[in-house]
Amino acid sequence: MSNAIFYHAGCPVCVSAESQILEIIDRRKVDLEVVHFGEGQANRIREAEAYGVKSVPALVIDGQVLHINFGASMDDVKNG
Amino acid sequence: MSNAIFYHAGCPVCVSAESQILEIIDRRKVDLEVVHFGEGQANRIREAEAYGVKSVPALVIDGQVLHINFGASMDDVKNG
Repeated sequence: MSNAIFYHAGCPVCVSAESQILEIIDRRKVDLEVVHFGEGQANRIREAEAYGVKSVPALVIDGQVLHINFGASMDDVKNG
Repeated sequence: MSNAIFYHAGCPVCVSAESQILEIIDRRKVDLEVVHFGEGQANRIREAEAYGVKSVPALVIDGQVLHINFGASMDDVKNG
């Protein structure tokens, strides 16, 4: 079982892209958690940065970061 | 059934990221094709650009582009 965390900040441009990638993930193989920084999970930003997340949306699979598109930089997330 | 095309150029840095994302895709929901520009499929570059692919690896799901990480620009693929 892989462990995946999907970090995002609700960037309007990326919402459809996000829903698409979540839809194609095989839940039988992947234990998936979705973290929305804008919805009371801002305390997870430091954790995301520790994984190497530079922009959102990002999918961390077993500790490895996949940056998807370019929605908002981590600086934007902090300042927004 | 979604239709997905994974475009890449064998960028060494991205190989493990690529294999990970391919592994987590639910093949029951997604009809997946892998296109490697470096292995006789350079003729697919124009098609990828028409979808809006700006860098590889990229995953096009039902015509929508998800750029994953930043491996090599399309210019690098053409010139390499």
